[in-house]
Amino acid sequence: MVVPSDAFFMRLSLDEAWNYQFLTYPNPAVGALIVDRHGAIVGLNAHKEAGKPHAEVLAIRDAYVHLSGDESLKNCEDAGKLHEALASRAGRLFHDCTIYVTLEPCNHTGKTPPCAALIEKLGFSRVVIGAPDPNPEATGGAKRLEHAGLDVSVGIEREACDTLIEPFKKWQKGRFTFFKLAQTLNGVIDGGIISSETSRRWVHYVRSRIDLLVIGGNTVRIDRPTLDARLVGGRAPDVQIFTRNREDFDREIPLFGIPGREVRFGDELPEKGLVMIEGGEGTLRALKDKIDWMVLFVAPVLKEGTCYNGKKFFDILHQRMSGCDTMLFLKGKNDG
Amino acid sequence: MVVPSDAFFMRLSLDEAWNYQFLTYPNPAVGALIVDRHGAIVGLNAHKEAGKPHAEVLAIRDAYVHLSGDESLKNCEDAGKLHEALASRAGRLFHDCTIYVTLEPCNHTGKTPPCAALIEKLGFSRVVIGAPDPNPEATGGAKRLEHAGLDVSVGIEREACDTLIEPFKKWQKGRFTFFKLAQTLNGVIDGGIISSETSRRWVHYVRSRIDLLVIGGNTVRIDRPTLDARLVGGRAPDVQIFTRNREDFDREIPLFGIPGREVRFGDELPEKGLVMIEGGEGTLRALKDKIDWMVLFVAPVLKEGTCYNGKKFFDILHQRMSGCDTMLFLKGKNDG
Repeated sequence: MVVPSDAFFMRLSLDEAWNYQFLTYPNPAVGALIVDRHGAIVGLNAHKEAGKPHAEVLAIRDAYVHLSGDESLKNCEDAGKLHEALASRAGRLFHDCTIYVTLEPCNHTGKTPPCAALIEKLGFSRVVIGAPDPNPEATGGAKRLEHAGLDVSVGIEREACDTLIEPFKKWQKGRFTFFKLAQTLNGVIDGGIISSETSRRWVHYVRSRIDLLVIGGNTVRIDRPTLDARLVGGRAPDVQIFTRNREDFDREIPLFGIPGREVRFGDELPEKGLVMIEGGEGTLRALKDKIDWMVLFVAPVLKEGTCYNGKKFFDILHQRMSGCDTMLFLKGKNDG
Repeated sequence: MVVPSDAFFMRLSLDEAWNYQFLTYPNPAVGALIVDRHGAIVGLNAHKEAGKPHAEVLAIRDAYVHLSGDESLKNCEDAGKLHEALASRAGRLFHDCTIYVTLEPCNHTGKTPPCAALIEKLGFSRVVIGAPDPNPEATGGAKRLEHAGLDVSVGIEREACDTLIEPFKKWQKGRFTFFKLAQTLNGVIDGGIISSETSRRWVHYVRSRIDLLVIGGNTVRIDRPTLDARLVGGRAPDVQIFTRNREDFDREIPLFGIPGREVRFGDELPEKGLVMIEGGEGTLRALKDKIDWMVLFVAPVLKEGTCYNGKKFFDILHQRMSGCDTMLFLKGKNDG
């Protein structure tokens, strides 16, 4: 890279958004970045959880704090209050600034005012958008901003921005299913805890947001898990034990003792929602045709053991460090 | 991240430098980044090969082209010419700019004038350095710049910047040895080509720079390799076949037919130089105590097979995509 391009700024926004993949359910993961008139990054943030502010609003908040020196909004996470305060206080701060956002800014008033209205009001001169909004209710943000005279570019890093919201697009219409697996470098997946505390906390965060956790019957019998979200103080998900024989489980296994949790049995997945599967090789094989993505934690460890087997080609959609592990988001390839 | 920090800019410089890890031998890998007075990134580059310009000079060149619009130096890779042209043409362009560099700028006149002199001459107001230069011949850059009145910070992302030059520090005093391995996600390492074209090209680049390629005897017998650098048109390295029995090889195996190559046999590594080991599980086990780092290509593929075994803990020093593979730089941990 010689000097930063639109693609560079969009990549930074994408990386930020991926940190909250699945955690924003039922909203899409979105990242946003603000560049001032001189080309300096003055804000970068992501949508973190449904009900909390959108990525654009948080990035604008951070940029406002940085540019104005007014720290009173620094930790504000009330979307309505932020919209109002930013619109009334920012003045000309954002004139000639550019906002990068991985997904078209929303144009409908839901729990919060539309992001497109805030961007228009603050006088951004340029809006760079990755993917158009696939949600018919929220769409129209780009058009609105164009009509208001802003310079709008749509489709920067389009493929990567579309990939980021693939779960969102799928769960809007039905079910999105991903398999979470933790392994050593050399492909060993059994014999106790493998991944780092950071990785396990991520799993617990996800458990607290999903509609259903599917777990292999053998894993239940052998590991006797709890399958809650205790590491992050979150809600324990409903569980489906992937099995044909519901009578075959010791009810003293901790997962059965979580208050308010529904435990189902069966080898059919539900039609709707965000579903995470945890399990071993057997579950992976049995459900391989129903899995949209895999999330693979690879702990930097060699362990004596037997690797899981299979025959499949993937694309690596995203990778990052997760504590001392590497974390890969994988999607099966059709040619596999 | 709210807004960019010194750490953020140093991380970008580090990532750029890692792209050329080992390829700069016998020089260290170095990355540099220029931020203008407004905080905008105006240049980012890395040292790529011994005899070519240092990272600072390339980053300054890129920034000069961007800020001045003078494209005549855009592709210049003659270090002496760049020093001279930049010093005479840049005027006040770099006044109030900051330069980030992962390693202390050199202060001695070798094949090129010292980078510290160029930075001083161009009027940078601030110099942010990751690691101090461990080379006694080149050191003194930070001191010189401080004496000249520049604001110099040393030690930003120090640990990561030290890690980047760990091979350099070790091969200066003797031998640095790394094991290159390509595997599938599930730890299968045999049965034909595993990694992507991009990954194999990297291996060929490295082969063209190293002092010695050590290859397992079994790998030679089974794979009958050529072990040259044909994918990048580079020099084929000298080879040591790791074995106790030099008589046991079919001399029709292509690696024996490369003109100008020395082929040795033996189970002792040389005392000096940059040594890459390629091989399978047997070689990995036999040499595990002599390996400084591992470079692991993980192809996003599941394959039926047997994983390699071992018992060892690592730190992931760096990860990046390499074509469709993920590429991990690993270092064994003492507690393993």
